[in-house]
Amino acid sequence: MHSIDDYRTHFVSFLETFVTEKEPKNLYNPINYILNLGGKRLRPVLTLMSADIFNGNYKEALNAALSIEVFHNFSLVHDDIMDDAPLRRGKKTVHEKWDINTGILSGDAMLIMAYQLFENYEANVFQALAKLFSKTALEVCEGQQYDVDFETRNDVTIPEYLKMIEYKTAVLVGAAMKMGAIVAKASTEEQNNIYEFGKNLGIAFQLQDDYLDAFGDPKTFGKQVGGDIIENKKTYLYLKAIEFLGENDKVELVNLFSSQPDKVEEKVETAKRLFKASGSADATKEAIKLYTNKAFKNLDDLKISEEKKELLKAFGSSLMNRTV
Amino acid sequence: MHSIDDYRTHFVSFLETFVTEKEPKNLYNPINYILNLGGKRLRPVLTLMSADIFNGNYKEALNAALSIEVFHNFSLVHDDIMDDAPLRRGKKTVHEKWDINTGILSGDAMLIMAYQLFENYEANVFQALAKLFSKTALEVCEGQQYDVDFETRNDVTIPEYLKMIEYKTAVLVGAAMKMGAIVAKASTEEQNNIYEFGKNLGIAFQLQDDYLDAFGDPKTFGKQVGGDIIENKKTYLYLKAIEFLGENDKVELVNLFSSQPDKVEEKVETAKRLFKASGSADATKEAIKLYTNKAFKNLDDLKISEEKKELLKAFGSSLMNRTV
Repeated sequence: MHSIDDYRTHFVSFLETFVTEKEPKNLYNPINYILNLGGKRLRPVLTLMSADIFNGNYKEALNAALSIEVFHNFSLVHDDIMDDAPLRRGKKTVHEKWDINTGILSGDAMLIMAYQLFENYEANVFQALAKLFSKTALEVCEGQQYDVDFETRNDVTIPEYLKMIEYKTAVLVGAAMKMGAIVAKASTEEQNNIYEFGKNLGIAFQLQDDYLDAFGDPKTFGKQVGGDIIENKKTYLYLKAIEFLGENDKVELVNLFSSQPDKVEEKVETAKRLFKASGSADATKEAIKLYTNKAFKNLDDLKISEEKKELLKAFGSSLMNRTV
Repeated sequence: MHSIDDYRTHFVSFLETFVTEKEPKNLYNPINYILNLGGKRLRPVLTLMSADIFNGNYKEALNAALSIEVFHNFSLVHDDIMDDAPLRRGKKTVHEKWDINTGILSGDAMLIMAYQLFENYEANVFQALAKLFSKTALEVCEGQQYDVDFETRNDVTIPEYLKMIEYKTAVLVGAAMKMGAIVAKASTEEQNNIYEFGKNLGIAFQLQDDYLDAFGDPKTFGKQVGGDIIENKKTYLYLKAIEFLGENDKVELVNLFSSQPDKVEEKVETAKRLFKASGSADATKEAIKLYTNKAFKNLDDLKISEEKKELLKAFGSSLMNRTV
């Protein structure tokens, strides 16, 4: 087994061989730009780690890992257009630096290139990877659509919300790990267990994102604390608070999340007070724990050494103890 | 062998089983809408015909044919956003009926669904189809980018223009036919010959589109005659005229294609006069003939009966004698 830093270093070297000047420049330069913006490279690292865990050669998983990263960045480019986002990792988004049409077309090309990266595998592995990829990619689209739909709905339930974050975020984490297992030729049962591990960890990760957005440390949290509250995003914190609050407080929170005041500090403070008082903040922490433990339970059935299980748990715990 | 109408009827029945209500509605309804807008279904018909020609069961090619049609409609949805087009087949475009974000996301889902349709084939056929599909789809994106780039360039050469229409339009026709050959398990040589036949026919078809846009019969031509001239599109007719015209006429044509007059009739008439006087109209007709004959020559090497070759030629000729 290698360290997380090792996997990341190897992945980034491999990525660099992929990012080359190609014609037409107006199609490929934006692709190289977004792929070079950096980031934690969490998903591809998980693919390499998973291949290693199932006794495969992690280097053989590099193409699958890159496919996951190219797809992830494709979804960022198109989502940023839909969200009208000006910045990504502190730099201009593709449609801001170029234009919307460039963002659409370069994104399309990235989705196709993600499939092409499987062509280096023999037919059976190719088919297994491409099938998993298509299923996952379509779920990510569905998750994005549910997220858009929820913006204009006032009756979103907790199960619906959980399904949305599962599709929009978590299935790609599960798929990243399952791809490593497929390349390593692990059994179908092992493949499914590691997929569930990644998926549940992905749900926990997203719930923690919701929590940190309100209660993270402004010094270490990468984004503006309270960003979701300012944008009236109905996260897990909000939905749980609505469930727990008495009639008067509930009306206050609903009204707060229909407003767009100039002075946002007061809005953020009121929302945080209601999240805490209602018990929603604690319930969110409980849900994070629940999904993290679900993920750890998925490891029980894996036919791998205890050391490897501990390694996966340590990695999961480190993600869940993050403050950024 | 079956008739073109037979293939179309079978394809449309198959398409209808694919177009079903799915959740989330805001993602899948626009997909069903565009797939139900009709059209000649030329590409999927070619896939079925090709499978039949190589002694395959054309019904086994239905999934590949549908993949080609879903991809073609994906490219229409995204291109219509980029071109800001209000109408498609006389009906509202997806982004007009819904919005741009819906067009982007539904288009993305269609591209993924096109790949999923190959999952019904065994691993080796799956890989062959998906590889061809990815190569073709990326070329279509590149062709679209060249088309966009050409709008702001004044030095586009004839070879560059031919490459653009080859990528944007013709390779998909070639791929549609090659997929039929792959499903029918034709030899690699046969696959490549039928690909070249389709590609050259596709180039001839696009050149004829350029020609008919100026010189088609307004009674039978589906679109507004002179549309390309009004929009200052530098088609084959324009580029050849620039090549042939003397300095004064050339300046007149360049200026004409930099203007956007209120009264378009006069502009269209002047352009058509210059296209004819320069010899560009005739040169375009020659080029259409050249690529049609190239396509027919690709048939010579095919190890299929003379009757089948005559059938393909008759189909090609009927496309080239169209007035719509």
